[in-house]
Amino acid sequence: MAEHSVTEPDPVGGRAPGTERRPMRLLLVNCNTSTATSERIRAVAQSVAASSTTVEVATPEFGAERVVGFYDSFISAAASLQVMARWRGRCDGVVMVGFGEHGREGARQLMDVPVVDITEAGMMAACLLGSEVGILATSDLVVGPVRESVAAMGLSSRLRGIHVAVGADPADPATFVPAAQALLAGGADVIVLAGAGLLGVQEHLSRECGVPVVDPLTTAVTWCESLAHLSLTTSKHRDFRWEPGKAASLG
Amino acid sequence: MAEHSVTEPDPVGGRAPGTERRPMRLLLVNCNTSTATSERIRAVAQSVAASSTTVEVATPEFGAERVVGFYDSFISAAASLQVMARWRGRCDGVVMVGFGEHGREGARQLMDVPVVDITEAGMMAACLLGSEVGILATSDLVVGPVRESVAAMGLSSRLRGIHVAVGADPADPATFVPAAQALLAGGADVIVLAGAGLLGVQEHLSRECGVPVVDPLTTAVTWCESLAHLSLTTSKHRDFRWEPGKAASLG
Amino acid sequence: MAEHSVTEPDPVGGRAPGTERRPMRLLLVNCNTSTATSERIRAVAQSVAASSTTVEVATPEFGAERVVGFYDSFISAAASLQVMARWRGRCDGVVMVGFGEHGREGARQLMDVPVVDITEAGMMAACLLGSEVGILATSDLVVGPVRESVAAMGLSSRLRGIHVAVGADPADPATFVPAAQALLAGGADVIVLAGAGLLGVQEHLSRECGVPVVDPLTTAVTWCESLAHLSLTTSKHRDFRWEPGKAASLG
Amino acid sequence: MAEHSVTEPDPVGGRAPGTERRPMRLLLVNCNTSTATSERIRAVAQSVAASSTTVEVATPEFGAERVVGFYDSFISAAASLQVMARWRGRCDGVVMVGFGEHGREGARQLMDVPVVDITEAGMMAACLLGSEVGILATSDLVVGPVRESVAAMGLSSRLRGIHVAVGADPADPATFVPAAQALLAGGADVIVLAGAGLLGVQEHLSRECGVPVVDPLTTAVTWCESLAHLSLTTSKHRDFRWEPGKAASLG
Amino acid sequence: MAEHSVTEPDPVGGRAPGTERRPMRLLLVNCNTSTATSERIRAVAQSVAASSTTVEVATPEFGAERVVGFYDSFISAAASLQVMARWRGRCDGVVMVGFGEHGREGARQLMDVPVVDITEAGMMAACLLGSEVGILATSDLVVGPVRESVAAMGLSSRLRGIHVAVGADPADPATFVPAAQALLAGGADVIVLAGAGLLGVQEHLSRECGVPVVDPLTTAVTWCESLAHLSLTTSKHRDFRWEPGKAASLG
Amino acid sequence: MAEHSVTEPDPVGGRAPGTERRPMRLLLVNCNTSTATSERIRAVAQSVAASSTTVEVATPEFGAERVVGFYDSFISAAASLQVMARWRGRCDGVVMVGFGEHGREGARQLMDVPVVDITEAGMMAACLLGSEVGILATSDLVVGPVRESVAAMGLSSRLRGIHVAVGADPADPATFVPAAQALLAGGADVIVLAGAGLLGVQEHLSRECGVPVVDPLTTAVTWCESLAHLSLTTSKHRDFRWEPGKAASLG
Repeated sequence: MAEHSVTEPDPVGGRAPGTERRPMRLLLVNCNTSTATSERIRAVAQSVAASSTTVEVATPEFGAERVVGFYDSFISAAASLQVMARWRGRCDGVVMVGFGEHGREGARQLMDVPVVDITEAGMMAACLLGSEVGILATSDLVVGPVRESVAAMGLSSRLRGIHVAVGADPADPATFVPAAQALLAGGADVIVLAGAGLLGVQEHLSRECGVPVVDPLTTAVTWCESLAHLSLTTSKHRDFRWEPGKAASLG
Repeated sequence: MAEHSVTEPDPVGGRAPGTERRPMRLLLVNCNTSTATSERIRAVAQSVAASSTTVEVATPEFGAERVVGFYDSFISAAASLQVMARWRGRCDGVVMVGFGEHGREGARQLMDVPVVDITEAGMMAACLLGSEVGILATSDLVVGPVRESVAAMGLSSRLRGIHVAVGADPADPATFVPAAQALLAGGADVIVLAGAGLLGVQEHLSRECGVPVVDPLTTAVTWCESLAHLSLTTSKHRDFRWEPGKAASLG
Repeated sequence: MAEHSVTEPDPVGGRAPGTERRPMRLLLVNCNTSTATSERIRAVAQSVAASSTTVEVATPEFGAERVVGFYDSFISAAASLQVMARWRGRCDGVVMVGFGEHGREGARQLMDVPVVDITEAGMMAACLLGSEVGILATSDLVVGPVRESVAAMGLSSRLRGIHVAVGADPADPATFVPAAQALLAGGADVIVLAGAGLLGVQEHLSRECGVPVVDPLTTAVTWCESLAHLSLTTSKHRDFRWEPGKAASLG
Repeated sequence: MAEHSVTEPDPVGGRAPGTERRPMRLLLVNCNTSTATSERIRAVAQSVAASSTTVEVATPEFGAERVVGFYDSFISAAASLQVMARWRGRCDGVVMVGFGEHGREGARQLMDVPVVDITEAGMMAACLLGSEVGILATSDLVVGPVRESVAAMGLSSRLRGIHVAVGADPADPATFVPAAQALLAGGADVIVLAGAGLLGVQEHLSRECGVPVVDPLTTAVTWCESLAHLSLTTSKHRDFRWEPGKAASLG
Repeated sequence: MAEHSVTEPDPVGGRAPGTERRPMRLLLVNCNTSTATSERIRAVAQSVAASSTTVEVATPEFGAERVVGFYDSFISAAASLQVMARWRGRCDGVVMVGFGEHGREGARQLMDVPVVDITEAGMMAACLLGSEVGILATSDLVVGPVRESVAAMGLSSRLRGIHVAVGADPADPATFVPAAQALLAGGADVIVLAGAGLLGVQEHLSRECGVPVVDPLTTAVTWCESLAHLSLTTSKHRDFRWEPGKAASLG
Repeated sequence: MAEHSVTEPDPVGGRAPGTERRPMRLLLVNCNTSTATSERIRAVAQSVAASSTTVEVATPEFGAERVVGFYDSFISAAASLQVMARWRGRCDGVVMVGFGEHGREGARQLMDVPVVDITEAGMMAACLLGSEVGILATSDLVVGPVRESVAAMGLSSRLRGIHVAVGADPADPATFVPAAQALLAGGADVIVLAGAGLLGVQEHLSRECGVPVVDPLTTAVTWCESLAHLSLTTSKHRDFRWEPGKAASLG
């Protein structure tokens, strides 16, 4: 072997410090009309965001209290874009909080800041942690939208399966265990929760099943912060170009 | 439209603060044997890492001064794993710094912390910023390894093309512009640099071409920090399980 | 060769007659807010529908005068669903008239009759007529939505390319010829117009280029009639099930 | 919301009438040598074709009484082309009646009219009615040919599974129910019968299983009529060009 | 590094000898009706087969003098199966000599010995020699059949392109050079000739272009010999099972 | 039918003899450090190689006694390349003996002779014998590497499944039967052993299960001989070009 120099482990350290992040305003867009959900989203996001980040949450004015399935998802997409439009020029990044819901490409066209859909962040993080991803859902109506969302981001080959935990209750995380184990038995080695901020479920499943369980909301918040921190933003080269004169409102 | 409540923009803010990140030690593994490269990697990483993060850089003991092509890449993978093994239990996350190089799955099996290959981080970030990704390389020998790396992560359908900027010199960022424009003409709307920490090139291309240009190293550093911050780590359920008795060394 | 019996050609015929179709009401949903467009859709549809079919056209109450790109498309999806909801139980089939626009899965959940998106009908008809499909568009902003729509229906492998005829004017069909020829030079052997009811363009291109040119609107109208005639309707088994209690309105 | 005009539901109607279809001659090509099958095909086709359509049925002179599996299918393809050649210039459209059988591309090259293979029509119609298609067959020997036929048309990603109803008897539709339920349990939400004109089975399964069940023959007949009605025909641009001097016969 | 033993290069050798191959009879099935072609196939095959192999060539009784395009290909498939049927039980392996032609799955069902289609052998050998395969054809009518044949064997992702050398003449190998160079310029790094036994073209192109050029016939002959030598034969488990009572003849 | 001449079966033969193969030296590279394994590889290879072929076996100097999983595989790749480098210019072909192990592209760059990975040969041979391939493994740690190896060669669509025969013992071939039957029940119709030279297991499974069972080592040996015999070697056009000045050694 050659006698190249090598950096030996140095647990004591003494490195130059990293950087302080500049303050930023992060907009989280709830996909449903429930302000209680919006408040939960805010709390979860703040629990992981940098201290220099201001977390804002927007709630759609119309749509469903709980977005479940294709119809709700398309209504939610428009409602999310409507409420998001008011924030143009007033935030540094957008997180769309609806697992498997539509609209992210519209947001990328509308806004001038980076946009992260939690479905994307959840799937991508899972792909960094395991080989084959299992998604844990609570209604069979979301199987279709989730599958299409994953396909549109190009990661279908990494998705081993979507399992519906019928009757599972976030207040009782143990009710999610059988469905999680079914995903592992089917070949998955990492799980993504098809929800947002179910930190209790995440912790319980991870401990019981011995695999990483990804909460897509917390991942999306930190990744969106990262993109804004690195001054990376959406391409306006073609699909997401905003044409002058287009009205950024519904009516 | 329903009269649901809505979160109005509030530029003044007044939100509860985010979280201070706990200190962490991040290991960056250079893919080549050049300590000069290792020092550049350290500087770039420190420029974007959190102030609470300690950046360590490991340099392989054998392999190539510059890793270009399949043969170098496989040698680099083993050399990277060898040097990484010394850090088991002594870091909170690993970033593998070699665009298109092999070995990330081996690192995931070897280490008990999250592992991010900069190829993954670069491609995934680009997928959040644009529709179709173009990769800008400096040798045709890396076309094969890069294409296979992207395929293995499942994102081939998002990769529009790889373009080789023959004779481009990082010291003269303008030499990269024609190749970048060729990528855009071919359909890409976001560019990933097939290198690490070419911040001068990134800035120049982004300004000249009007599209986001991703430096995969800085993205990987912040995403690996994010995973460690969220206590997410590699699945040991199957492919990445470390069997007791296996020797984590080359000889 | 065996002496099996064979049906010889019998140009004179004398077969039992086919069936008279029962009357049906077909709902065409314009994707934009232009009533002029709606009237053109009605005229084109009536020109190909059966004499026993009543053609109705619905116009969204909000959205864009001309739907171009992702943002418009998501707004259009919700607006189309809103206006469609008023027709539940009052039509025998739905045609969604927006090439590359979103919402068809939501319509399938909302309505109890067959739903045909003109993008689907256009692509599928082209796949019956040629090997590799070229789509002719008039704005680069629709490249993304069209590509995703084709991917979602599973036919990406049949799509050879999307070409944008910059500045082409439906009133002057010759302005589409260069883009059509570019599609053929690129490998396509059949063309789909990314519009609806551009019968003049269709006829001109077909004659000038010597290939079939599909108008997706007329195809969709006759196929939707066919599905209703055969008493085939949308599956309510999973993705498109309508849950009791869900409100089929926006507000 | 904007005050755009909207087409209100008008159940009474009063629209201008649709069009009377011009008379056409539709050629159905049986894939096997059974004249009894040919007569059944004729009767089923006439039951759904327009009153202005003349239905002709051609029976191959050689091949198998019942086409089951790859060997039969390739013999059938040549025999079908042989008998079809006699109809050049004497029909307005061709329906190839053999589910999963080969030859459609040869027919498109041979004939100057639109050609619809019932496998295509069955799969495409199912894709308009559900998310994931299940195919119900009666011999495991057809699994291969059907899977390849679906792959060649580009719709593999929509095919959830092929299930063989061992011993099922079209005269007793209830014998198909367990296999249909297995398809639904496996994820399919719409079923295509791997046969032609099994209207009794179609009706029984649809009622018992509560999902749309597609008979590919009736779908193909109405779609081929539609293509001819719209003056759409096969592209002769490349793969399906007929070279002068080529003999359209087997010997 | 460990002190494991290592086999040092030993150019002098002294190994135990390999095996003498048992005599075998290999059937090559020409796809066209030209006996001149059959004789050329025989000569080329004998030039590479083992001395213990007897080469037989069968010529179809009907079909085209030169098989070009889908129609010819389907006729050829049936004619090839007809002539092949006479050799059941009388040969040890079958090579189907028609690049891009149909019928191999039928042959696998019909025969009890290994069957190699030269399209398969050519593509697979090329995949062992290079990264991305280019196919060099002499008529645009074969683009479709070749593309489908490669797709059916599952290797589409390795096929970079098919280029038609218009007017190229096997008697003048230089006429193939521009098309070969176009394939390399397009990304291919290995070439397969869409013909059989064009050894002069193979040699010339390989020398002029500096890349491996695969003649699919010679590859198929030696691979089929290899399968028979290893006592490997076609699976009769499902798709290729021959049902008792099925007639292995056309009439 | 035409009166073309036809080659009648001629069991007596009388053909001109095939060719005597020129002597060649074939290098087999064991993936692990066990010289016992190397000797078994040599014996199996010699049992199928031509009598004119000299079989050499190289054993890596570092790595694992038994290569199982990603980490071992990457170490093995570098160790295999190291030992292989000593044979540059001294052999006529290379067989890499490690099922699912990495490194083949590096070997293609390093060496000037054809390189066959037994994973490739095993999968490709299986694709010539059946429709859907099942791979029989003995540790779940190889599922990941094998799946990626098959994906990289482009044959994922032909791989039906990988089944792990937990606790199976090559000395008792019957212990593999349940896993083999599970593969067949899952849809596979041909089996590849994820090992090398398990001839006893191959014979037993083939007889018990009634399907072809491929030993990838023997297939690879004869195919590599075939490529060398036909003077086909690796493309040096791009990915596998060896740059002057690059050092073909680890240190």
